[in-house]
Amino acid sequence: MDKKLMTIDLNSQILIEKAEKDGVETMYDRKNGFKSQCGFGLQGTCCRICGMGPCRISPKTPRGLCGADEHTIVGRNFARMVAGGTAAHSDHARDIAHTLALSSRDGNYKIRDEKKLIELAIDWGVETECRDIYDIAHEVAEIGLMEFGKPHGVSIFLKNAPKVRQEIWKTIGIEPRAIDREIATVMHSTHIGCSADIDSLINLSLRTSMADGWQGSMIGTRFSDIMFGTPMPTQTEANLGVLEENKVNIILHGHEPTLSEMIVLAADDPELLALAKEMGAEGINLSGMCCTGNEITMRHGVKIAGDFHQQELALVTGAVEAMIVDVQCIFPALAYVADCYHTKFITTSPKAKITGSTYMQFSEENAYKDAKKIVKEAVLNFKNRKPEKVLIPEFKSPATVGYSIDAILSQLDRVVNFNVDKTGTVKPLIDCLKSGVIRGVAAVVGCNNAKSVTNKNHVTIMKELIKNDILVVSTGCGAQAAAKFGLMDKGAKKLCGKGLATVCELVDIPPVLHMGSCVDISRIVDIVSECAKYLDVDMCDIPAVGIAPEWMSEKAVAIGTYVVASGIDTYLGIAPPVTGSKKAVEILTNGLKKEVGAAFTINENPDELAAIIIDDIEKKRDHFEKIITEKINLSQV
Amino acid sequence: MDKKLMTIDLNSQILIEKAEKDGVETMYDRKNGFKSQCGFGLQGTCCRICGMGPCRISPKTPRGLCGADEHTIVGRNFARMVAGGTAAHSDHARDIAHTLALSSRDGNYKIRDEKKLIELAIDWGVETECRDIYDIAHEVAEIGLMEFGKPHGVSIFLKNAPKVRQEIWKTIGIEPRAIDREIATVMHSTHIGCSADIDSLINLSLRTSMADGWQGSMIGTRFSDIMFGTPMPTQTEANLGVLEENKVNIILHGHEPTLSEMIVLAADDPELLALAKEMGAEGINLSGMCCTGNEITMRHGVKIAGDFHQQELALVTGAVEAMIVDVQCIFPALAYVADCYHTKFITTSPKAKITGSTYMQFSEENAYKDAKKIVKEAVLNFKNRKPEKVLIPEFKSPATVGYSIDAILSQLDRVVNFNVDKTGTVKPLIDCLKSGVIRGVAAVVGCNNAKSVTNKNHVTIMKELIKNDILVVSTGCGAQAAAKFGLMDKGAKKLCGKGLATVCELVDIPPVLHMGSCVDISRIVDIVSECAKYLDVDMCDIPAVGIAPEWMSEKAVAIGTYVVASGIDTYLGIAPPVTGSKKAVEILTNGLKKEVGAAFTINENPDELAAIIIDDIEKKRDHFEKIITEKINLSQV
Repeated sequence: MDKKLMTIDLNSQILIEKAEKDGVETMYDRKNGFKSQCGFGLQGTCCRICGMGPCRISPKTPRGLCGADEHTIVGRNFARMVAGGTAAHSDHARDIAHTLALSSRDGNYKIRDEKKLIELAIDWGVETECRDIYDIAHEVAEIGLMEFGKPHGVSIFLKNAPKVRQEIWKTIGIEPRAIDREIATVMHSTHIGCSADIDSLINLSLRTSMADGWQGSMIGTRFSDIMFGTPMPTQTEANLGVLEENKVNIILHGHEPTLSEMIVLAADDPELLALAKEMGAEGINLSGMCCTGNEITMRHGVKIAGDFHQQELALVTGAVEAMIVDVQCIFPALAYVADCYHTKFITTSPKAKITGSTYMQFSEENAYKDAKKIVKEAVLNFKNRKPEKVLIPEFKSPATVGYSIDAILSQLDRVVNFNVDKTGTVKPLIDCLKSGVIRGVAAVVGCNNAKSVTNKNHVTIMKELIKNDILVVSTGCGAQAAAKFGLMDKGAKKLCGKGLATVCELVDIPPVLHMGSCVDISRIVDIVSECAKYLDVDMCDIPAVGIAPEWMSEKAVAIGTYVVASGIDTYLGIAPPVTGSKKAVEILTNGLKKEVGAAFTINENPDELAAIIIDDIEKKRDHFEKIITEKINLSQV
Repeated sequence: MDKKLMTIDLNSQILIEKAEKDGVETMYDRKNGFKSQCGFGLQGTCCRICGMGPCRISPKTPRGLCGADEHTIVGRNFARMVAGGTAAHSDHARDIAHTLALSSRDGNYKIRDEKKLIELAIDWGVETECRDIYDIAHEVAEIGLMEFGKPHGVSIFLKNAPKVRQEIWKTIGIEPRAIDREIATVMHSTHIGCSADIDSLINLSLRTSMADGWQGSMIGTRFSDIMFGTPMPTQTEANLGVLEENKVNIILHGHEPTLSEMIVLAADDPELLALAKEMGAEGINLSGMCCTGNEITMRHGVKIAGDFHQQELALVTGAVEAMIVDVQCIFPALAYVADCYHTKFITTSPKAKITGSTYMQFSEENAYKDAKKIVKEAVLNFKNRKPEKVLIPEFKSPATVGYSIDAILSQLDRVVNFNVDKTGTVKPLIDCLKSGVIRGVAAVVGCNNAKSVTNKNHVTIMKELIKNDILVVSTGCGAQAAAKFGLMDKGAKKLCGKGLATVCELVDIPPVLHMGSCVDISRIVDIVSECAKYLDVDMCDIPAVGIAPEWMSEKAVAIGTYVVASGIDTYLGIAPPVTGSKKAVEILTNGLKKEVGAAFTINENPDELAAIIIDDIEKKRDHFEKIITEKINLSQV
């Protein structure tokens, strides 16, 4: 296949061509190299869990050596994907919690959102009166840390959900206990000779995913806001065109804001700026990729260099002095690509060492010092840049980002009649949904996947939804696709249906709202929960859906699962490796409806998927309008 | 291949033939059904960690889509096997800890070994003076539970190792923190885009395995001894010949003693014995399989029905009223086999539900009541037995089992000169090793694996070792192989070299000592640690080795890894899925020597493997004797 047709991003196309000329291998070459992928793996029917295997299920061999059938094998593999994703998000959150425990008035990490800390402290029963804010922070941090390993009890966040939703979780036994315990339980229950029942394996997956969505991710997001500030609307630009020829270009890639926040500070350090000048550069140009990109653009407006599939291509520009990474979604291939240019590929986390990289360990204890050292390494590398190898493609799009819930509520206040209604509530959003001006809300999130044309599913679906008056919120690499293609620009209201366009105009927002990184999907769950509580209905009653058009990581599997467990229908543009089990497919796409009021829909054609979603949202609206009417009638009795 | 040649167990051969006649499929049929196994899976070079895959490494495709090479893929898969095994053992230990927290003077679970509890309490800084033993037990239980999730600090057990070994662990960073955290960290670090460095991935695997061996397993064994009694030598019999035609046959299979201990009690309940008579049976005949079999034979002399590969064949006898299982190593195929006979296949744990089984949840809170209900189900099933379908093969072997460390030390006291030396120490064992009467000690442990002829590797290697004056200790299905083949009979001393035969005679032990279930490998590590401390040397200086001739489970991978991390060379009779990475093989079989003083040796030919081990032990003796001589010389200066 022509590699340039594997992405709809014009910058990427230009750089794929350049890589070819430079003799540099990228993912698009490797994709072409794999003639076909293993059908057993694709369908989830290959079991490598014990040392007697691998066993693969086919009509001639319908059971593995131990007797496990396709349902058991698919179920176990699925549960382990959920465990992997939950572990990734939560381990990120754990680091944030440890950092909060380290925070101090004169240290590297400070409390930026005292109000949010106090609210959380009160919610958790921590004494707040007459106490130093850092004492409160440390106590809150320790409670957060215990969520990972407490021997007794369930997630501290569950009580924030609508009562009726809490009841469902209790009834079907998916209230998560300690986060790490859920991960360990999945690993145990999927060990040879344990769970061999697809219903049980999916139930287990739901509970573990809840430890991601309603526990780890919530700690990650809340604690990050407390320490680094709650995002508010800010202007930025997106795509590789943000690189600057005359500056030291540093790309931050990965996930945890503990590192990136310090790099943002260090990149502004007069000493390092002076050094950059000394090296012949006009300054330091910081940009972000993947979720680290999201974290720093949300809080500081740092420009977005690109998404998951652009990480190699960014280096192919020949203009990047350093790619600084921490954890998750880092291509090991960056070591090879960096070798073809002058780029320093700097790894920083003991959890993600990569062969061929420059390892400069970042520790929260010496955060700013470590960050300065790392940035210095990048600045010093400017002199090694080879101008003849530089090609910065020109495309970039303006975007307004930073839509935390607080930001969204504050925007909504623009249409509140102060004389009648309270401010800072979800009422204006609900009014829009009730009246049908906005038909529904869709969270379009997730990764890029080599199984589809890069960005195509995302952009196709988002455009179709906003055209049909569905407000889109986005996180992760989905948000970056939206930003790159102009959908986070306020001008994109011209692509919307009349209702949504009007709302965008009145509330002064773009039709696709950037809500953050992949752990920040907790923000989306939170706002749906708030809407449901406001209306005294269940979360599955709200016309809101989740969509992962190009998902790729285990994190996405965990997310999709907890979104469904939260009662929000979820649509996948890539088939997960479950299709080898009819039972698994039946439960995930239908059976769960009965249990949790939501299920998965899988369709690899983005146009078809968009049509299904729009149709489903309209159906959900019928139900929603009926419930609302009933409520009104009841209240009038 | 002729199925009967796939095992050296004569009972198994008879029952494989019967299964064939009865039209019942067993593992041996499925083994024949799989013409060949996937080479990528066997070598560990298939990556299914993200949704872009599966990616498989070959000369034409040397890197996955993200750029992961064979080393990264093998390393990640290996680390996840260690995490799976650690999760299984530790989650078992967690249940034991929760049960200890429930223990009470008039409840189902009592304190049986007060001395062991008090010793542990003192070691853990728990106040013991003037306190109720159950208050102490509950406080100890809570400390144990915190080992799974404490936010700060490392394993509480590490301080029991020789100082020099502790230093090694600290230096190379493999001191395990909370058990579940290590599992979560592996799942995170092996997520797409994290660790891509084989050294780092193996280091991570070592640390996680340490959470199994020096944390979870130690909790499991110690707490079990405290509640259910520390095993002491007792007589039993092993192999399917222990089933009795005129009695209700109940087989207990799985791992956690919380269930089996209660079933042992219930099977002796007068009410149920009367019911058995009413049903026309002469009584209730309890026997055990896999590690549950080991737990109850060690503590109560309950007969051993068989090992992992005999679980289906046990039902093929047509004489089993109920197969009662909890977790781990349970063939889902038991549901199909049970369907062909009158057997009730009863699952009891929410962690291991199996389609087609009768699920009767066992809860520690209602332990005895639940156990009685389950046994009653078995007894009532006696009337459904079809005599024409019954064939109990005759072979069984006598065995002396129950060799906890306490039991071994107490046996060794038989050769202590009370006037000169203290009793209850490892000195007599060390004297035997020093003098060379015993050349070394080998722990032959682990599973059965369809990749080798069942029991052949175990029996070949154990016989060869004892012939060469190497004392063998054993756990798991290895111990069951030894018991079935008469090697745990004291008469087996006739198979030993002269030195070992003399020791067996004087100390009154068989040449292969049953030390328990797979979590009880902590006992083996403990005794090597005690020997090293006694001599003031490192664990790697003792002529002791670990051998897993037919390993199969992820638990075995975790065990092998912590045994190596403890400085004990480990020999595998089945190649783990790492051979696709030269680097991984080099580190595991050689590189680790430099780091932890021990490494793996892999050889699938049991005769060759035995010869290598004997040779290595002799080399280790040279080193050992030199060190001992140096110590003596130093002490004489």
